[in-house]
Amino acid sequence: MGFHAYVVRGARARLEPFEYEPQPLAGDDVEIQITHCGICHSDVHLADGEWGDVFPLVPGHEVIGVVVAGKGHEVGQRVGVGWQRGSCGVCEYCRGGEEELCLGSQATCVGSYGGFADRIRVSGRFALPIPESLPSETAAPLLCGGITVYSPLRRFAAGGSRVAVVGIGGLGHLALQLASALGCEVTAISRDRGKEKDAVRFGAHAFIVGAPPRGAFDLILNTGHFAPDMEVFLAALRPKGVFCQLGAASEPLEVLSTRLVVGRHTVCGSAIGAPGAIREMLDLAAARGIRAQVEVVPMNQVNEAVGRTRRDEARYRIVLAN
Amino acid sequence: MGFHAYVVRGARARLEPFEYEPQPLAGDDVEIQITHCGICHSDVHLADGEWGDVFPLVPGHEVIGVVVAGKGHEVGQRVGVGWQRGSCGVCEYCRGGEEELCLGSQATCVGSYGGFADRIRVSGRFALPIPESLPSETAAPLLCGGITVYSPLRRFAAGGSRVAVVGIGGLGHLALQLASALGCEVTAISRDRGKEKDAVRFGAHAFIVGAPPRGAFDLILNTGHFAPDMEVFLAALRPKGVFCQLGAASEPLEVLSTRLVVGRHTVCGSAIGAPGAIREMLDLAAARGIRAQVEVVPMNQVNEAVGRTRRDEARYRIVLAN
Repeated sequence: MGFHAYVVRGARARLEPFEYEPQPLAGDDVEIQITHCGICHSDVHLADGEWGDVFPLVPGHEVIGVVVAGKGHEVGQRVGVGWQRGSCGVCEYCRGGEEELCLGSQATCVGSYGGFADRIRVSGRFALPIPESLPSETAAPLLCGGITVYSPLRRFAAGGSRVAVVGIGGLGHLALQLASALGCEVTAISRDRGKEKDAVRFGAHAFIVGAPPRGAFDLILNTGHFAPDMEVFLAALRPKGVFCQLGAASEPLEVLSTRLVVGRHTVCGSAIGAPGAIREMLDLAAARGIRAQVEVVPMNQVNEAVGRTRRDEARYRIVLAN
Repeated sequence: MGFHAYVVRGARARLEPFEYEPQPLAGDDVEIQITHCGICHSDVHLADGEWGDVFPLVPGHEVIGVVVAGKGHEVGQRVGVGWQRGSCGVCEYCRGGEEELCLGSQATCVGSYGGFADRIRVSGRFALPIPESLPSETAAPLLCGGITVYSPLRRFAAGGSRVAVVGIGGLGHLALQLASALGCEVTAISRDRGKEKDAVRFGAHAFIVGAPPRGAFDLILNTGHFAPDMEVFLAALRPKGVFCQLGAASEPLEVLSTRLVVGRHTVCGSAIGAPGAIREMLDLAAARGIRAQVEVVPMNQVNEAVGRTRRDEARYRIVLAN
């Protein structure tokens, strides 16, 4: 009996029901009965053909479910799967606990069928146990959105760091919670004054609409899908400050070399994180009550849900439920 | 009796003889009788008015000389001074040994008169003893050009790191020597095939004219005064690789966010380094026979010498001598 999924057959096509035969279980693979799957903006970029010819596409890479077969975990274990479903396991990055950098990395929903489905098979190393206290629907967005913001925070921030989060959406609302839990001094920067109350509730100590102040931040996380005015944002950094781009912007960031040289600033990107980092983040979320704010939508309403994500209407993440 | 110097009175004006009365010696200040001063491309940028209205300008920030007065050192001590002549001494950066990031940093030849002169007065903390085995004329360029390439090497490279040096000039020929001394695997990238022999002599293990190979380097140091095709250069990085811009380019670096996100790449800048880092580099230079390749020119031929630096004709650094 095949797996039941929703497929996009070409750029911007509607999702339609689809049945496929999975690859046989091998090695430490597990089969997961999916209960929840978050909708990430990457799913929209993929479905809209912005990231190349990835069709037929079954989107979905914020998966929560229960192991029903395979050797990687006990049957019955609740697990989550993010952007990555496998890696070579032997290269310097895999051995060093940075599996996300493996050149043989396998994506959950590119080259394989993803989580908008009833079941999925992935390497057990990338199916991570979910701490008991975390509800599935609010934990799902942590698997991609959460780790995407947590990775640069653990690399570049510490207690007392002055962190700005640009864009209060799926990623941003998790970044505020995680940065606050790490003891950072957190500023939310948004174009929408209406989000101030939420931002404060998520842990922001300050809220700015418009341009950031000069020389104010150790770390700026841009979760927006746009390239901001880098003159303004690099000027907003303190010495040694880091500007980290998380959202996929189609236009390039325009970076003046003097802005890099003076104050020794860094521009970088970040995406996902290794299984070890995801486990660490899940433990922090469990300990500190970090929860995505979600709208739960039945899987069969996937087209409406993707449309709302495309139009940035989700507050703050839509999670599909079987 | 005043100090004798060469001054630029406006953008692109000729240098002319100039006499000025120095500030009184205070605190740990020292007065240095200048024997040598390197000509850095920054001096040309300043003299050409590209970095604002800095006139009247006495250029020069690769100074070697002998202490003749003041409390910061014994009289007779041979010392060197780079881009920085002073700092507040009390901020978190000064206390943490990163004086180059001090917001109260004083530049040797901006806001004060620099090293194209017979004497200069600077804070003793920024007048660094020169190891005995280093000749003054070949050590002078280390004070700015050398530390500018050494800083990112000590931050981002280690033995075995794959380092590319783009541009084989004043900075580049020192970067090849320093990277090689640190045990890196060093590739020189130049537009000029004629520099291959020199590059190999400076320590390059490979020499490339044109585009770099994909996925090849942990660290790329761009010493050129231009913004390269960042698509090509970011693709040339290995996972976690760093592209570091050292030369001042007038046009912005155009950085696609996907190039930052995939492979977790970093774009940064670097300039000079703290006194502690300069001392470390001078010790390394002394231990490993690192020498700038210089043309020594009498101080009174400063106009011809600056012209040759402006036209990138120096092989590989011009040093003025009193």
